Amino acid sequence: MNYRIEKDSLGQVKIEKNKYYGINTKRALENFEHKGKKLNLEIIKSMAIVKMAAAIANKKINKLDKKMADFIIESCEEIYSGKYNTEFPLYAIQGGAGTSINMNINEVIANIILEKMGYEKGRYDIVNPIEHINLSQSTNDVFPTAVKISVIRILRELINEVMKLQEILQEKETEFSNVFKIGRTQFQDAVPMSVGSEFSAYAEAVSRDRWRLYKIEERIRRINIGGTAIGTGVGASLKYRYYVSEELKRLTGYGLARAENLIDATQNMDVFVEVSSLLKTLAVNLNKMAKDLRILSSGPNAGLNEINLPKLQIGSSIMPGKINPVGPEFIQQIYFKIIGNDLTLTMACADGELELNAFTPIIAESILESIELLRDGIKVFAEKVVKGITVNKETCRKYVESSLTKATELIDKFGYEFLSEILKESNKTGKHYLDILKEKKLI
Amino acid sequence: MNYRIEKDSLGQVKIEKNKYYGINTKRALENFEHKGKKLNLEIIKSMAIVKMAAAIANKKINKLDKKMADFIIESCEEIYSGKYNTEFPLYAIQGGAGTSINMNINEVIANIILEKMGYEKGRYDIVNPIEHINLSQSTNDVFPTAVKISVIRILRELINEVMKLQEILQEKETEFSNVFKIGRTQFQDAVPMSVGSEFSAYAEAVSRDRWRLYKIEERIRRINIGGTAIGTGVGASLKYRYYVSEELKRLTGYGLARAENLIDATQNMDVFVEVSSLLKTLAVNLNKMAKDLRILSSGPNAGLNEINLPKLQIGSSIMPGKINPVGPEFIQQIYFKIIGNDLTLTMACADGELELNAFTPIIAESILESIELLRDGIKVFAEKVVKGITVNKETCRKYVESSLTKATELIDKFGYEFLSEILKESNKTGKHYLDILKEKKLI
Amino acid sequence: MNYRIEKDSLGQVKIEKNKYYGINTKRALENFEHKGKKLNLEIIKSMAIVKMAAAIANKKINKLDKKMADFIIESCEEIYSGKYNTEFPLYAIQGGAGTSINMNINEVIANIILEKMGYEKGRYDIVNPIEHINLSQSTNDVFPTAVKISVIRILRELINEVMKLQEILQEKETEFSNVFKIGRTQFQDAVPMSVGSEFSAYAEAVSRDRWRLYKIEERIRRINIGGTAIGTGVGASLKYRYYVSEELKRLTGYGLARAENLIDATQNMDVFVEVSSLLKTLAVNLNKMAKDLRILSSGPNAGLNEINLPKLQIGSSIMPGKINPVGPEFIQQIYFKIIGNDLTLTMACADGELELNAFTPIIAESILESIELLRDGIKVFAEKVVKGITVNKETCRKYVESSLTKATELIDKFGYEFLSEILKESNKTGKHYLDILKEKKLI
Amino acid sequence: MNYRIEKDSLGQVKIEKNKYYGINTKRALENFEHKGKKLNLEIIKSMAIVKMAAAIANKKINKLDKKMADFIIESCEEIYSGKYNTEFPLYAIQGGAGTSINMNINEVIANIILEKMGYEKGRYDIVNPIEHINLSQSTNDVFPTAVKISVIRILRELINEVMKLQEILQEKETEFSNVFKIGRTQFQDAVPMSVGSEFSAYAEAVSRDRWRLYKIEERIRRINIGGTAIGTGVGASLKYRYYVSEELKRLTGYGLARAENLIDATQNMDVFVEVSSLLKTLAVNLNKMAKDLRILSSGPNAGLNEINLPKLQIGSSIMPGKINPVGPEFIQQIYFKIIGNDLTLTMACADGELELNAFTPIIAESILESIELLRDGIKVFAEKVVKGITVNKETCRKYVESSLTKATELIDKFGYEFLSEILKESNKTGKHYLDILKEKKLI
Repeated sequence: MNYRIEKDSLGQVKIEKNKYYGINTKRALENFEHKGKKLNLEIIKSMAIVKMAAAIANKKINKLDKKMADFIIESCEEIYSGKYNTEFPLYAIQGGAGTSINMNINEVIANIILEKMGYEKGRYDIVNPIEHINLSQSTNDVFPTAVKISVIRILRELINEVMKLQEILQEKETEFSNVFKIGRTQFQDAVPMSVGSEFSAYAEAVSRDRWRLYKIEERIRRINIGGTAIGTGVGASLKYRYYVSEELKRLTGYGLARAENLIDATQNMDVFVEVSSLLKTLAVNLNKMAKDLRILSSGPNAGLNEINLPKLQIGSSIMPGKINPVGPEFIQQIYFKIIGNDLTLTMACADGELELNAFTPIIAESILESIELLRDGIKVFAEKVVKGITVNKETCRKYVESSLTKATELIDKFGYEFLSEILKESNKTGKHYLDILKEKKLI
Repeated sequence: MNYRIEKDSLGQVKIEKNKYYGINTKRALENFEHKGKKLNLEIIKSMAIVKMAAAIANKKINKLDKKMADFIIESCEEIYSGKYNTEFPLYAIQGGAGTSINMNINEVIANIILEKMGYEKGRYDIVNPIEHINLSQSTNDVFPTAVKISVIRILRELINEVMKLQEILQEKETEFSNVFKIGRTQFQDAVPMSVGSEFSAYAEAVSRDRWRLYKIEERIRRINIGGTAIGTGVGASLKYRYYVSEELKRLTGYGLARAENLIDATQNMDVFVEVSSLLKTLAVNLNKMAKDLRILSSGPNAGLNEINLPKLQIGSSIMPGKINPVGPEFIQQIYFKIIGNDLTLTMACADGELELNAFTPIIAESILESIELLRDGIKVFAEKVVKGITVNKETCRKYVESSLTKATELIDKFGYEFLSEILKESNKTGKHYLDILKEKKLI
Repeated sequence: MNYRIEKDSLGQVKIEKNKYYGINTKRALENFEHKGKKLNLEIIKSMAIVKMAAAIANKKINKLDKKMADFIIESCEEIYSGKYNTEFPLYAIQGGAGTSINMNINEVIANIILEKMGYEKGRYDIVNPIEHINLSQSTNDVFPTAVKISVIRILRELINEVMKLQEILQEKETEFSNVFKIGRTQFQDAVPMSVGSEFSAYAEAVSRDRWRLYKIEERIRRINIGGTAIGTGVGASLKYRYYVSEELKRLTGYGLARAENLIDATQNMDVFVEVSSLLKTLAVNLNKMAKDLRILSSGPNAGLNEINLPKLQIGSSIMPGKINPVGPEFIQQIYFKIIGNDLTLTMACADGELELNAFTPIIAESILESIELLRDGIKVFAEKVVKGITVNKETCRKYVESSLTKATELIDKFGYEFLSEILKESNKTGKHYLDILKEKKLI
Repeated sequence: MNYRIEKDSLGQVKIEKNKYYGINTKRALENFEHKGKKLNLEIIKSMAIVKMAAAIANKKINKLDKKMADFIIESCEEIYSGKYNTEFPLYAIQGGAGTSINMNINEVIANIILEKMGYEKGRYDIVNPIEHINLSQSTNDVFPTAVKISVIRILRELINEVMKLQEILQEKETEFSNVFKIGRTQFQDAVPMSVGSEFSAYAEAVSRDRWRLYKIEERIRRINIGGTAIGTGVGASLKYRYYVSEELKRLTGYGLARAENLIDATQNMDVFVEVSSLLKTLAVNLNKMAKDLRILSSGPNAGLNEINLPKLQIGSSIMPGKINPVGPEFIQQIYFKIIGNDLTLTMACADGELELNAFTPIIAESILESIELLRDGIKVFAEKVVKGITVNKETCRKYVESSLTKATELIDKFGYEFLSEILKESNKTGKHYLDILKEKKLI
């Protein structure tokens, strides 16, 4: 027989014998079955850290015996390393405010320990997912804590990529500082500027994003661990609360701090709205930049053709020689997705009721996906697109010369109204306005 | 003394003597005071129609005496004409699911009648806003009914403008059918096409929108009049229900039909989501078209400069001679607003609870604003922008000749891979690929 | 050596020898590398159908020899069956308007055929991904066509689930038709109604959604196959165009029709906005219903407790006995996701430029994910949640009796103002208003 | 004759003689005619400050003679005071990146001065809107600068209201600190807590919002004045740039600072996305709180009825005695609107191209409307809703007693699994679980 039977107060369920997860996980798999995304495993990594910290704290206050605590710690390290990834098969979207995720890891840890002890899986009378692994905890506190730890971890990776993009943009600023071009407002020729200053504007915007993301860590590091059910701390002693947050700080190396108002920290999700909004702001700057690059590299013959993007791949299955700006297109689509995710997250955060937000799974999924997309997209964008950009100096020069742009600089001399008349004459006759001014012996 | 005192079960309130509105309106003004938009008066016009229909129905079933009914009808006609517009000072955003709006018109009608009868305003013992004017009605049925009537009325005006835009686009299609240009995909030169077919694509998209908007009337004409409180019909006799909807049909000339399931029709707002979505779809097509026009008219010297938009106004306070594509910019901003309104409305519709949606005021405001913006924006866009577009044939021709586009047509003869090699050689040497083929005596 | 070398005009790339995909796929994997979703394989299934239809059409017009055509057809059948799923490793989000996806399947088919013919993979001089497999086609026409076929296929599955939900809701309507409860507006007690009519309102809303989804197929079945580059049809003969669309109709069994204006059908994506909007409308109704069920089943002791949802899983890792409404929570999160996806898709559709929308990959991903989520979520919701709902008749009865609701029915007898006074007295004294009326010998 | 004729390079236009605005304003009125919102006059107030600062700076560098400068300053003071409000009739949504707004105030100032000097309006040969009033300026720098000054001004008013709301919530926290209630997660009974801590959670969330809004001023105070066209500073001397920003600081009293990278500051709008996002975050917290209050005050007989909201107005035109939570409903609708505005603004910010964002008018409109709605809505909410909340202690106590909540506290003694069994027995038999434990002599 390849199944074991597990039971709870609702009845019993068959589980494949080799599975480390148990009845709660199995029920969740059936209750939320869909062909969508699976749970982001960054959450499991962080849950492992939280369970480890809880075990250490429970050991210190003698609520858990040393041997059991050490088994938990060892199992969590293995889970963190990815060894049991296939044992976390839940869906990203699921009901239950994270309870199934918490129970999943509780069950997996219990069964890993049972195996280490030489017992069969499912012997919860010996190692109990709730009474041992979940001791002094509630999904209400461990799940949001784990999500925040995940956010900090991958946010730092994102910041790293943003920094590299900024550096590459600044290199381009220097490289192109002496190439002049015509600046455009509202798609119409305006006044001259350098290509370098165009890239300096992108670099500056990105540096603001970097600063914003860097500062936000101050806010998400407030965790509600120790709050247990709805932030009351029921079932968690004061000593435990102290130790568990100290351990989390030590294990992660992040400046985590327990929120002072745990009732608030358990029910209000505004900090995720704030983080997601900054991701959105970054995406806005990226979209602007990506679109600009597509416009400036348009052509080659029937477009602006001011700059050249690196050729990443063949662009057409029917038009030989065609190369498309696929890198910026990739970025723009990431922007669309970030905006969609931000909305999903915002609604989920705003729709929480009373003492808990039931929609934490999709909040977690949305924010983690957005960070990962930006991190990976920016890496491609910086290294494969921006780094290799070259300028068609001749084209830029030609545009500057043909344009009306000197007119603006001549306002001080001739006045706006007089120049408007000259330009009108230029439009009618086809003569360059500078030639008209010369004819009139004004310059 | 310039005030009269009105009272309700919560206490008494001072009202300026010359005001036709009463205590409920006054309270609402204080409760929702803000510097935002005022109520869209299209709603008041439709409320007047509904009140008129109710009075006629109540008269027919002898629930209201003829004289009172005739007074109501006369007052509603005056309100519809706009005579009392300043007596409807409520805000677009307000709590209460429309109750304040309903009470506002009930009070105004009552006081108009009192005035006609020679009484002082406020003598509700003689003409009562609830017992006479609101007879057989509830805000739950009259307000959504009035909103739907408003939607139909201005939607027809919008459809009319969409039709005119389509016609003008089709004229452009004909006008430009013989001008060839280079088509572009992903901002890169692709294959040739006519400028006419470019406009035919816009016309076709707009014709789909027109059809969608035309068909949607079938759905919004299902009204819940007669349903009174939560659709139960309490307080409204079967005869009344029959007469009131017949009268509404007669008065509006629209194919209104009472919903069969009044409980559903009172609580579910999905039809507004559907209408708003079609407005969004129209806005999407307009944004695409407006952005295209801005790109194609970019320049004049450092842009594509394929087409010319009519010059609507001076474009710069510092750059003489600059003219901007302000018409398409206007349209794109309307698009942004329609998308925002659609989201506001969608959330409001989805967040209704149980037997009523409490957020009908913002649903009404959002959909009416969107329709009006599209109606007025399209009128400007069609007449002031699209109608006057001209084409720079020479520029278009030049692009076609310089492009690689013949290459695609030569695939059948030479194969994709061979042509790719030729184009690579062309890129390196600067020679036109057709010249290389000629050198090789292949054409 | 485990690699083969493939080359294109940009250079050469190493491919693992056992891979059926080639250089274009490999480049795309590197250019868009990220930890996000993989391409939805529903698209590959439909691409296989399109390639098959093209091969048949090319054979009929003698552009492709019979043997090669038959090889293509056979390979497409195998791809459709899922046999080569691991050979389609691309990401859901990618630049290039679908070109990489088209090239991926072109390469896989070519290499399957080479294998069947006994050649090594990569011998594109014998079987060429572009010249044989992509013959008479462009990504511009095959990709959007394949996406629409995918939408129709899974939309029909969704409609099926919506129908079942409607039936179950109607069963509940019948089952609860004689249980009376108090209706609520704005969370406040209103007038009595039956529990059955509550479910009839849900059923009615869902039936509208079903109708909407059913009707939309009329619109998405307009495909642009045969349009090739930007809808010009370059490289595709008139005969081919006729045959390929006839074959697609035959192979799918759907009422597909080639769009009359292919330029329009290639660049304008409004039909996807329209479909996505209807998914949104459905999601709005589901969210309303799910939230209602959570409110009505709140408790058990400190909530409304009118209905009971089936117990799906244990609800808490710390509060024994707690069961949560995880089914409706699942649905509400799907709603949040659908709204986010709709926004992503809308922006992607509106931001297309000129002759092509470069963002078709994320448009496809968004709409397919939304349909699948709704299809799978509704299945769970109907069968695991709605079907098993029971009513607490006693609680419902108690609420009806304690409420003010008879007051509304007494308006005709006593008038609104008089009853308001009685209710005020009732509030002050704590006596039931009916008792007060009895004391006053009025009833 | 009641008209004067004004002309520009596009032709001539008739203007009513008594109007201070001129040809550019008139053209804009015709070009963007629609039945939507008018321009927010907060912008005009700030434009007046900017024009004043520019006049002072131009005077200091002797580019403008003292008399003319003083006339400008005097006129701007009058405009700021609201004296000429009717002379600014433009629409909130308009093309042209703010040029029409800039020209509107330039024209009005010119004509005020002409009037002061005893000339007829329109004598621009004497006082010129561009050459005198717009001297050293471009719409590109003055408009965004004015918008930021407006944002700071009303943001401070908003912060003030947020602070008051926080204080009132904290008063409620103290007032209700000894009332116990049952906390709820996912609408299901959880564990006990105090009503005071419920309000402390709201207060804490609001205090975070207050801090966020306070800190954001650091970012929006970076202005691009002196950048003129696209940030190049063309037409503005270095001395002017220094003086004009110093004057702006002095006149506003805000810590304004000229951006170091003016090219960036002119084209990138991310700071508005950031500010709008924080308004959104505040709205999310408000919506959560407002919804909670509606749920907790539901009833009076068929709801939770834990708290009582102040009675603001009669709730029904058909159900006597009904009072609805119109204050929280007002807030929730403001939330829907803020989310919609945030989306509109985000898209407008992301869609800017190259050296300027053409959509600054709708960016300005969206952010100013959102701040005003929040400012005014919070004022009503704090003073009319939250301040007057009372608690039904008896109801709260009853819920605590009837609930399972002690069970959680007994876990340490009996274990989770054993208690689950007891609760199952309690469910079956109807006996209270504490009684079962007593029967078993366990407590």
